[in-house]
Amino acid sequence: MSCNTFGRLFRFTTFGESHGPAIGCVVDGCPPRIPLTETDIQPWLDRRRPGQSKFTTQRQEPDQVRILSGVFEGMTTGHPIALMIENVDQRSKDYGEIKDRFRPGHADLTYWLKYGIRDYRGGGRASARETALRVAAGAIARKVLGETVTIRGALVQMGPWTIDRAQWDWSAVDDNPFFCPDRQAAQAWEGHLMEVRKRGSSVGAVIEVVAEGVPPGLGEPVYGKLDAELASAMMGINAVKAVEIGAGFAAAALSGEENADSFRMDTGADGQRRVVFGSNNAGGILGGISTGQPIVVRFAVKPTSSILAPVPAVDLHGNEVEVSTRGRHDPCVGIRAVPVGEAMMACVLADQMLRRRAQTPDVPDSPILPRP
Amino acid sequence: MSCNTFGRLFRFTTFGESHGPAIGCVVDGCPPRIPLTETDIQPWLDRRRPGQSKFTTQRQEPDQVRILSGVFEGMTTGHPIALMIENVDQRSKDYGEIKDRFRPGHADLTYWLKYGIRDYRGGGRASARETALRVAAGAIARKVLGETVTIRGALVQMGPWTIDRAQWDWSAVDDNPFFCPDRQAAQAWEGHLMEVRKRGSSVGAVIEVVAEGVPPGLGEPVYGKLDAELASAMMGINAVKAVEIGAGFAAAALSGEENADSFRMDTGADGQRRVVFGSNNAGGILGGISTGQPIVVRFAVKPTSSILAPVPAVDLHGNEVEVSTRGRHDPCVGIRAVPVGEAMMACVLADQMLRRRAQTPDVPDSPILPRP
Amino acid sequence: MSCNTFGRLFRFTTFGESHGPAIGCVVDGCPPRIPLTETDIQPWLDRRRPGQSKFTTQRQEPDQVRILSGVFEGMTTGHPIALMIENVDQRSKDYGEIKDRFRPGHADLTYWLKYGIRDYRGGGRASARETALRVAAGAIARKVLGETVTIRGALVQMGPWTIDRAQWDWSAVDDNPFFCPDRQAAQAWEGHLMEVRKRGSSVGAVIEVVAEGVPPGLGEPVYGKLDAELASAMMGINAVKAVEIGAGFAAAALSGEENADSFRMDTGADGQRRVVFGSNNAGGILGGISTGQPIVVRFAVKPTSSILAPVPAVDLHGNEVEVSTRGRHDPCVGIRAVPVGEAMMACVLADQMLRRRAQTPDVPDSPILPRP
Amino acid sequence: MSCNTFGRLFRFTTFGESHGPAIGCVVDGCPPRIPLTETDIQPWLDRRRPGQSKFTTQRQEPDQVRILSGVFEGMTTGHPIALMIENVDQRSKDYGEIKDRFRPGHADLTYWLKYGIRDYRGGGRASARETALRVAAGAIARKVLGETVTIRGALVQMGPWTIDRAQWDWSAVDDNPFFCPDRQAAQAWEGHLMEVRKRGSSVGAVIEVVAEGVPPGLGEPVYGKLDAELASAMMGINAVKAVEIGAGFAAAALSGEENADSFRMDTGADGQRRVVFGSNNAGGILGGISTGQPIVVRFAVKPTSSILAPVPAVDLHGNEVEVSTRGRHDPCVGIRAVPVGEAMMACVLADQMLRRRAQTPDVPDSPILPRP
Repeated sequence: MSCNTFGRLFRFTTFGESHGPAIGCVVDGCPPRIPLTETDIQPWLDRRRPGQSKFTTQRQEPDQVRILSGVFEGMTTGHPIALMIENVDQRSKDYGEIKDRFRPGHADLTYWLKYGIRDYRGGGRASARETALRVAAGAIARKVLGETVTIRGALVQMGPWTIDRAQWDWSAVDDNPFFCPDRQAAQAWEGHLMEVRKRGSSVGAVIEVVAEGVPPGLGEPVYGKLDAELASAMMGINAVKAVEIGAGFAAAALSGEENADSFRMDTGADGQRRVVFGSNNAGGILGGISTGQPIVVRFAVKPTSSILAPVPAVDLHGNEVEVSTRGRHDPCVGIRAVPVGEAMMACVLADQMLRRRAQTPDVPDSPILPRP
Repeated sequence: MSCNTFGRLFRFTTFGESHGPAIGCVVDGCPPRIPLTETDIQPWLDRRRPGQSKFTTQRQEPDQVRILSGVFEGMTTGHPIALMIENVDQRSKDYGEIKDRFRPGHADLTYWLKYGIRDYRGGGRASARETALRVAAGAIARKVLGETVTIRGALVQMGPWTIDRAQWDWSAVDDNPFFCPDRQAAQAWEGHLMEVRKRGSSVGAVIEVVAEGVPPGLGEPVYGKLDAELASAMMGINAVKAVEIGAGFAAAALSGEENADSFRMDTGADGQRRVVFGSNNAGGILGGISTGQPIVVRFAVKPTSSILAPVPAVDLHGNEVEVSTRGRHDPCVGIRAVPVGEAMMACVLADQMLRRRAQTPDVPDSPILPRP
Repeated sequence: MSCNTFGRLFRFTTFGESHGPAIGCVVDGCPPRIPLTETDIQPWLDRRRPGQSKFTTQRQEPDQVRILSGVFEGMTTGHPIALMIENVDQRSKDYGEIKDRFRPGHADLTYWLKYGIRDYRGGGRASARETALRVAAGAIARKVLGETVTIRGALVQMGPWTIDRAQWDWSAVDDNPFFCPDRQAAQAWEGHLMEVRKRGSSVGAVIEVVAEGVPPGLGEPVYGKLDAELASAMMGINAVKAVEIGAGFAAAALSGEENADSFRMDTGADGQRRVVFGSNNAGGILGGISTGQPIVVRFAVKPTSSILAPVPAVDLHGNEVEVSTRGRHDPCVGIRAVPVGEAMMACVLADQMLRRRAQTPDVPDSPILPRP
Repeated sequence: MSCNTFGRLFRFTTFGESHGPAIGCVVDGCPPRIPLTETDIQPWLDRRRPGQSKFTTQRQEPDQVRILSGVFEGMTTGHPIALMIENVDQRSKDYGEIKDRFRPGHADLTYWLKYGIRDYRGGGRASARETALRVAAGAIARKVLGETVTIRGALVQMGPWTIDRAQWDWSAVDDNPFFCPDRQAAQAWEGHLMEVRKRGSSVGAVIEVVAEGVPPGLGEPVYGKLDAELASAMMGINAVKAVEIGAGFAAAALSGEENADSFRMDTGADGQRRVVFGSNNAGGILGGISTGQPIVVRFAVKPTSSILAPVPAVDLHGNEVEVSTRGRHDPCVGIRAVPVGEAMMACVLADQMLRRRAQTPDVPDSPILPRP
């Protein structure tokens, strides 16, 4: 089969290749009567757009989104919302030399082995350009979630350089070209990445995405767990090799006492008593279901595979060749994965929110947690 | 909605609670004419079964599986294969004291918040007992994959103690109670875990599962990628908090040159020339599609939440209490996750194998990779 | 693939063959906190059960249902509800003679061609026995729908003999062995069917199922329309060859004026003004969505294929043979399709009800239709 | 949820409203390496296109299709194929007067009740314009099925006037504006329909679609039966109220002997012996699975709801009004349903063909039916 659709009830189907006439997606399942125009979507696309700093590819893709359906007089109608972005800066000639070659680290080889045909221009369907559509769908998902849910992402590691978590400042994220929450680290990273780029090399990254204000009860036993779906969503982003929730891999080395997030009752700003947690090693998820704590996900992006340094490879005739990429590429593709990770978080949560209310719309109030 | 089905074409639906009359699953989509009897399934269940060493819970569950349908005269018919395991050693009384309490680290709280009702006996639906059915379905998946695919798992870290990868010996795995591939580490772990158990504490673990002989071309762009589905499969196992493929999180710190798995042509034992790889940082997957290299997945299991040490908690009336678990529990639940991880790998691969041949049954031979 | 699951959010998976140890189903997606015991399900099974009159097969299947999971202290938990019915009266020897033969009108031939293996005992997976599980799932669906929705079915034609619709009396349905709503017709049918049985022949039937009290808004544009899903549900019942909604085939011959169901405002018993319809040619569905009028579906069941009269056939070696069925069979299988049709209606509606509230839980009140 | 996707493995998602900027669809799951250009699709769209005779609406929609993705150098790549048709002749002003009114027989009322918002222009999402996309997807499905499968449709009844089946001539179908296979009937229908149109009235129709050359083995027990999926596909076409397979409703009145399609062995043109059938009351489907005989489906379309004659209705404020449609409408919408019915048949068969080879690619040859 083929699988270009994400989600179950809030769901989107993407199409398009890097160098075709357009890319687009169809968002199905969005509730009706939500105000929506292109201006709700465009700013998120602009954040992901390349060519915005010297650290991302200099391709100029305006990524102008257009709504083709599903919105009437500024409101969603409950029908499929089709979004289209025309491809503008294509330069197919750049890719002629890799027409017959399989680039290490890319999908070239596996697409060829699977399909026996391959649109080699710019990676075709495997291009990271497809992630623009996830960001677009994510913008609609944020509208479905409403303003009480906040989703933010940050780069917490670039290559071998990590942030100092004590310096975490969300307001710093949009002040540097790395989405880095540690201002000092961001400054150091400028030099590091400049040097990486000069060497014709590349580095990977670790991204953290945090969702706050998520109501408890999202996620489904036993094969639609919230953490399982987040893992799939993040691992499915181009170049991602690892995903963890809360304490993640570090949890393996903890003792049961260290890892347990204790419960206590507390009185909130609204005067209501509710359960609170002593820590959040669980990353906001227990038994696959949201607890009400912040959902915390981290994922690792491998270093950009397109590098100047020549790498041994083969061509489709079975000849051994060397591949060296001279084109316009990001020295750290992980940077632009930040808005994509946020978008996937939004889509997973919006989907689970609709799924929750299908089965359990009327769970009674509990002394440990008043319903909003 | 509710989501107790795993997979798309090779798919199984599980049911049952820890202390109900039985647990079971229905495997749908299995090809016809595959020899199958209970004896193909039982040995895998026996590997996961508790009560086999002093390091797992002493509950005695014979976990005797029975095939109820879908097999005729020892062969699969292409119709749903229902498997049932009766619950024998239930001792509901053990759980009376947690009837009203939410145990930290467990699904007690979130199930209550989501459903407003909870079968508290032994964790109910959230019990790790459900994973026996994954192992059973995995046994059938192995038959679908055939003998050219080998799937093996091992514990590579227990608590803070890691193996020496240079000592890796697959034959060691079944010689110790930890599924540990490093004989020396296994010996040391005996002492470590005994001490953990004596303290009434627990530790986590990291499991590695490797699939060899997997044909190239499994996995689907862009939302059914093989790595994304493995991530979901592993993260969906009880208590798992992290998943990585190939180099995983370590890839973030590599340079592009270090990370790139180069290609070369080589002549195999069968005299045929084919593409080979200089390394396997990709873990056998490029662009979400299998390359033909071994598929390598690692996942982290948090320490057992049921510990003797008291942890602050609340009850369903909003009272603050302390929870301390005196029952029969594994000091390291990660150990028994090894066969479960293998089974999920088998199920994901069997599903993708059927999915591949639906869309691309007749891809032509390639000079770089002869078809089997 | 294989497709033994029905529904999307309220969904059930069935398993089992006519002569295996048991048949069963797993109902997933049922909301929590609904009172449920075996006694809610058994009466519906008893209605469908064979051996209750001289007009149905004399096989004695007690069809005793057992709940294996998903219910705790008499209430649904939101987790999968597994139901099992053990097969008691199997008499496999009766079927030895058709082991190698393909019976005309049965699935014998197509199962063989598709799977290359066939459980020939009693039709195996193709046996109408599977429909008992639909009835069981339907009983749970009725609980989900609640008491404001009434679903009733009746036989409106048996062989060439139709009822007089002017004599329709729902209370008559359970007073005769045909589920016939016309007492006089029912009396005549006794003689007709006795004669059919004596001849070793069989006849078909037309069943009408009506659902009243269905709220408006169920059904989804454009490929999940309520009428499309009902058509699939009814056509999927064994031996059904035709389905129609409302005026059905007769609508083709009407003029636009005759067919149009006009709207008017009326004041209901509750004192509220609401839209009412001048007629119901639409069968309660417009644009694939329920209007609030009764949902009316009719479907045709072909005559029982197992007849005494010999029919030319072939065996699996390619020999021409004659098949004549001497076993215990219904002269009109359509009769027992009545409770099955009701059950499928219930399942489709319950599924759509959950689906509706996922996407549109909060549609505002309308002057033309107050919300309940 | 919302459901704008049709099919499982060969599947398409449609979007767009009658008066939005464009309509389109995304076809996912198409096998790679199939030659495909717009010229493979356009002729089928032209057959359905309005404005081609005096008996269809005079709207001028060029319905020019454009492929946006999934095709590279004239071949499918295995990736999603996006098709777009821009809306040209919109005339939104025509619809101003129904802005607040619910037209009987249309989806106006139910869309309003379900969504609380409605794009009233030209029926919005409920417009038959959406069926152009089914025809486009159907054109691709035909390519997947290959040239050995022939799918043809015909109008066998228009209003109360039926054809003489003895006069059936497939070559007549494209020689008259009704897709009528009976030349004499077609001539008479010209006068009948002219009169209907003059009266400002409308009539319904019955369409028959026949697929020949369909291999045996398509269709899935027990909830993905070929007949159940065809029923859903046809009933889901706008204005369809009834579907039947083979003998259909007439089967109810037959005796078992009359209805049974006997089997015999025969030697085909290729010199191979194979099973043949004495009749085709089953419409090519037994047990939900294709037999190899022609698949025969009939469906009824209700008379066009948009008529000149005033019909009592209500508006969204609860006022009683009269609706009379002066716009450009077909006196018999059933005519244009012929190519749509063919397309849905093609899509169902292509989907089932991919599904079959996923589970059963290697069923052995049988003495009763050699594999192609």
